[in-house]
Amino acid sequence: MKTIKMGIAGLGRLGLIHAENIHNMKHVELAAVSNLDESVNKRIQEKYNVPYAYTNFEDMIKNDDLEAVCIVTPSSFHTRHIQLALEHDLHVFCEKPIGLEVESIKQTCRVIDESNKVFHLGFMRRYDEDYLYAKEMIDRGELGDISIIRSYGIDPIAGLDSFVHFAKKSPSGGIYLDMSVHDIDVIRWFTNSEVKKVWATGNNKAAPELNQLNEVEMGTVTMQLENNVTAFLVAGRTASHGYHVETEVIGTKGMVRVAATPDKNKVTVFNNYGVVRPTSQSFPERFKEAYVEEIKDFVRCIREQTKPEVTAVDGLRSTEVAIACQHSFEEDKLVEIKYEG
Amino acid sequence: MKTIKMGIAGLGRLGLIHAENIHNMKHVELAAVSNLDESVNKRIQEKYNVPYAYTNFEDMIKNDDLEAVCIVTPSSFHTRHIQLALEHDLHVFCEKPIGLEVESIKQTCRVIDESNKVFHLGFMRRYDEDYLYAKEMIDRGELGDISIIRSYGIDPIAGLDSFVHFAKKSPSGGIYLDMSVHDIDVIRWFTNSEVKKVWATGNNKAAPELNQLNEVEMGTVTMQLENNVTAFLVAGRTASHGYHVETEVIGTKGMVRVAATPDKNKVTVFNNYGVVRPTSQSFPERFKEAYVEEIKDFVRCIREQTKPEVTAVDGLRSTEVAIACQHSFEEDKLVEIKYEG
Amino acid sequence: MKTIKMGIAGLGRLGLIHAENIHNMKHVELAAVSNLDESVNKRIQEKYNVPYAYTNFEDMIKNDDLEAVCIVTPSSFHTRHIQLALEHDLHVFCEKPIGLEVESIKQTCRVIDESNKVFHLGFMRRYDEDYLYAKEMIDRGELGDISIIRSYGIDPIAGLDSFVHFAKKSPSGGIYLDMSVHDIDVIRWFTNSEVKKVWATGNNKAAPELNQLNEVEMGTVTMQLENNVTAFLVAGRTASHGYHVETEVIGTKGMVRVAATPDKNKVTVFNNYGVVRPTSQSFPERFKEAYVEEIKDFVRCIREQTKPEVTAVDGLRSTEVAIACQHSFEEDKLVEIKYEG
Amino acid sequence: MKTIKMGIAGLGRLGLIHAENIHNMKHVELAAVSNLDESVNKRIQEKYNVPYAYTNFEDMIKNDDLEAVCIVTPSSFHTRHIQLALEHDLHVFCEKPIGLEVESIKQTCRVIDESNKVFHLGFMRRYDEDYLYAKEMIDRGELGDISIIRSYGIDPIAGLDSFVHFAKKSPSGGIYLDMSVHDIDVIRWFTNSEVKKVWATGNNKAAPELNQLNEVEMGTVTMQLENNVTAFLVAGRTASHGYHVETEVIGTKGMVRVAATPDKNKVTVFNNYGVVRPTSQSFPERFKEAYVEEIKDFVRCIREQTKPEVTAVDGLRSTEVAIACQHSFEEDKLVEIKYEG
Repeated sequence: MKTIKMGIAGLGRLGLIHAENIHNMKHVELAAVSNLDESVNKRIQEKYNVPYAYTNFEDMIKNDDLEAVCIVTPSSFHTRHIQLALEHDLHVFCEKPIGLEVESIKQTCRVIDESNKVFHLGFMRRYDEDYLYAKEMIDRGELGDISIIRSYGIDPIAGLDSFVHFAKKSPSGGIYLDMSVHDIDVIRWFTNSEVKKVWATGNNKAAPELNQLNEVEMGTVTMQLENNVTAFLVAGRTASHGYHVETEVIGTKGMVRVAATPDKNKVTVFNNYGVVRPTSQSFPERFKEAYVEEIKDFVRCIREQTKPEVTAVDGLRSTEVAIACQHSFEEDKLVEIKYEG
Repeated sequence: MKTIKMGIAGLGRLGLIHAENIHNMKHVELAAVSNLDESVNKRIQEKYNVPYAYTNFEDMIKNDDLEAVCIVTPSSFHTRHIQLALEHDLHVFCEKPIGLEVESIKQTCRVIDESNKVFHLGFMRRYDEDYLYAKEMIDRGELGDISIIRSYGIDPIAGLDSFVHFAKKSPSGGIYLDMSVHDIDVIRWFTNSEVKKVWATGNNKAAPELNQLNEVEMGTVTMQLENNVTAFLVAGRTASHGYHVETEVIGTKGMVRVAATPDKNKVTVFNNYGVVRPTSQSFPERFKEAYVEEIKDFVRCIREQTKPEVTAVDGLRSTEVAIACQHSFEEDKLVEIKYEG
Repeated sequence: MKTIKMGIAGLGRLGLIHAENIHNMKHVELAAVSNLDESVNKRIQEKYNVPYAYTNFEDMIKNDDLEAVCIVTPSSFHTRHIQLALEHDLHVFCEKPIGLEVESIKQTCRVIDESNKVFHLGFMRRYDEDYLYAKEMIDRGELGDISIIRSYGIDPIAGLDSFVHFAKKSPSGGIYLDMSVHDIDVIRWFTNSEVKKVWATGNNKAAPELNQLNEVEMGTVTMQLENNVTAFLVAGRTASHGYHVETEVIGTKGMVRVAATPDKNKVTVFNNYGVVRPTSQSFPERFKEAYVEEIKDFVRCIREQTKPEVTAVDGLRSTEVAIACQHSFEEDKLVEIKYEG
Repeated sequence: MKTIKMGIAGLGRLGLIHAENIHNMKHVELAAVSNLDESVNKRIQEKYNVPYAYTNFEDMIKNDDLEAVCIVTPSSFHTRHIQLALEHDLHVFCEKPIGLEVESIKQTCRVIDESNKVFHLGFMRRYDEDYLYAKEMIDRGELGDISIIRSYGIDPIAGLDSFVHFAKKSPSGGIYLDMSVHDIDVIRWFTNSEVKKVWATGNNKAAPELNQLNEVEMGTVTMQLENNVTAFLVAGRTASHGYHVETEVIGTKGMVRVAATPDKNKVTVFNNYGVVRPTSQSFPERFKEAYVEEIKDFVRCIREQTKPEVTAVDGLRSTEVAIACQHSFEEDKLVEIKYEG
């Protein structure tokens, strides 16, 4: 079987996870890294025996050895990096979100559309076995018609100080774009329907200094979908108990909860605190397998010359909805979403 | 200890529960029943050895033997029955809601205020040990500052046909007034804050014929409170698994869920369906003890000449908010609530 | 309805629970207490308005006002107190165990047999709704044929020091007689079969000083029943998490666990320890309702002149098995049990 | 990195799992298969691009390309295959048990001892993240001193008919050797202590025809360890709910349960059966990751020239204890175990 040579752009926390997963795959070679910090590049080159390293994305994609690239650069670079990579005839895996502005995403979508390369978007929940199990139940009709969806993504409070620190330097884009896009994608995926109307609220009770920064520590969104499903989202940064990602689907025939409690493992501890289930503490821990599976699927698509289930339009829609949420929060009003083309 | 003689008005499903609980109390006598159906009256008279029976509330309250009355008549009669009972110098326990219209409730509140009799309102969740445990955690500060509350009340789907049947004959007043008042009361109780703004949605996917009746089978409300808490409510009639009443409180220091799953008991069954927890099937089952405790507290207040923690104003506020929810649902818009006096 | 006047003997921890439950029952009067400590008697007399108090059981049962007596005296007095009460024509409720020695229990059984008074034995688990639910599943055949039963009774470690303190003064009779009798009764009740063979082990790892006192801090028993069920018991005094009473039944068609975790209530807490379920801390808390129900059933038997389901022979058998367990532990061998008459 | 060429012997259910895991590893090649059924060999050769296939173990190990072999042949061949492979200078991974007879195992241990090749024994629970988490808690002292261990391994009843079918053709060696060895190994691993005394019981209530075959459908073992821990084991073939592997450790400072319920995933379903957790249905599903991890560790040991934590003596001890259990069951008595050298 032919070895696929892949480059990776961005070696932050999530970039390092993708690098390891790419490296571990059989018949795939992590052949290049592109990252600003040369010392990190060097470490990864040695760890995984990577032949090439760059401090510049444009340089990496000119390397003719490469067949594919995994983009984990800051979100604001995504649309440009995707387009450049496709122009250089590289298959592209890109972390969510596809971009931060609707116009540039739309333009990117057109470039993707016209390209014959694989474009894969990193909505890893679609590769998580728990989410897949729920999706299959829905598709088999076991829950009946969906009425309500609830979806939470709450980061551990342990990271709050560091978030405040970084938010002071550069804005995160807002909690809805930064975090809720995953939940928005899940809702669209589960319902096959589009979001019509949103009302977003938020507060900063643990870190009031975020108020001045126009950031939100705990945000909610209530959404009405075209098929008359109501969805309720929580995105937050203050979970004392760990990394809480949970999704509930209420249908006319049954309900399902994915990860009602963010169990770390199958262990139950009986101690002086009561009966305790240890919890996941981070996204790399919670979605470890899903990150592996999504890259595997990317590689499968390249080999089989097929398109992934998740598309660039899915990325566009999530961002459009997230932007409407931010707008709703800032104006404190119901916002109706208009989709064009 | 002096025996308190109590009458009960209304012997529907919940009336029968109160009748039994009153009967079982030591030093309390169920001394009169008032109910339209004489055959039911007769049955209860025999079962609990009740001396008097009436088919008319006005007649019962003239009985000088009585010291207190428990009102479980249809909601639309509540304000009138409360006032009549107080005028006859009876202590009053009244089931929620205190009334269906703001003006008549306000007037009733004034009558209650001017009376020196005990007025007790049937928000039984305030007497449920699980809700009390959560309330105490909140009050001790163990959850920190509250950011988000979520509260569900979903009836078993087994009762849906019968609901549709009755809704065709006479309107329920809407799911928010009928069901959400309990959740609204919990939210006010837990936060000590008032609801400022609501957005209500609803759908009828299991029983679409409800659309014509302006009824809702699954309703949601998103609320903003004065202290900037966001609350999300679900009221519904289609739970396949039983009677689902659940409340979640998310604070800056921790989260708590009351009845995350509506467990019937402490039994776990391992069978060909998987690992199964049997579920509560009805409010009498779920809140059995709470119904006993609230009547006990009513009696305690009478004996000790004190006022219950829950007041007529709590009843007024819940109804005001529920009416705003119904309004929001019908107009499909955000509704701001103004409280006067 | 005629009021039943009942006396209580013994006002220790469990005696006080029974006293309150008797007092709270309608048409039942707690008419006398008998207890060595006069100050406790006085307190209970005032609290429940009890007309008579004695420091001597023999004196109390001569009181002709009494119709029934509740015996909660130390276990070594049970057989004698039961016989005396029956001789004075009193209905008898007696806490487990019926006695500590086989011969005197057998003789007491004969006296009970010849009497026409109600004799009720305090195996409260038979009145616990969770145990009843499991029993009904078994009787309906939902678990198929039973293969294995596991039953735990573990006291909170918080009480260990106090246990060691008392054990130094006077022997407890051994953990099997003191604690396992409840589990033995459950096993006989669930299986309708007798224990044939036992192997008991035990250790003292938290309180090694118990070794010299021939006491056991954590004991186990493995049992073979006549119907070839194997049962495994744990009785202990060192649960860090609370009061752990759990029973599992494994059948050919399913398994069931009663109180797999000793949940205090329906609340789940998400905090820095993980996802935590608070736990029951004591038998009064865990079996609060069961203690009420067993006294209610005693009163029902008196009124309806019927016999309770649990009999004196059930008491005899549990003690016989517990004695065999103690014997097995001391000799470190398999012990076969012979039942005569 | 040099590619390790590995052969596999035995392509039954578990053999196929190992074949896939070996194939998927980077820098490892599944270079040969040995299996009686040529059609299976052919299928696997094509699927994983395997150069060599044999119907005879002796032939495969002569292939000089191979550096290591994975033995998944029937248990009765293990000792001979291990010795042959080591004689041909191959690193050996062998599925449990190391053998069925004490003498031949001891002799094999000597051969292993004298060899400088890696010998790895397939106790996959030692590589399961849940078991590892519990082991680490024990080693950190969080549970205090261990008093009691309980360990269950119960196969789904779906496989019972097929088990009866095969048992009629050839004996399984008994449920203790076939299944309990895993639990015995866990107990030794968790306690660092040896089993001193055992009492085994068993019954056949779902498949009584097993009685004639001297087989056991539900077996239990109670064990006393040298450090005075009591262990209780259940091995069975009749779980209605799936594949139930659970281990509990009770210590003086806390308790822990590994997989108290055999959850398939993190999904909770609320349907007309109640609140349902789907369950694992088989060992390949439950221990999917552990099987990957143990082969990874085998490869790591080869590369780093180290010895695995689990040794041949661990295999010997488990078999010795299992044989004592079978003996105890057949004679219906307590059996003391003597270990020599």
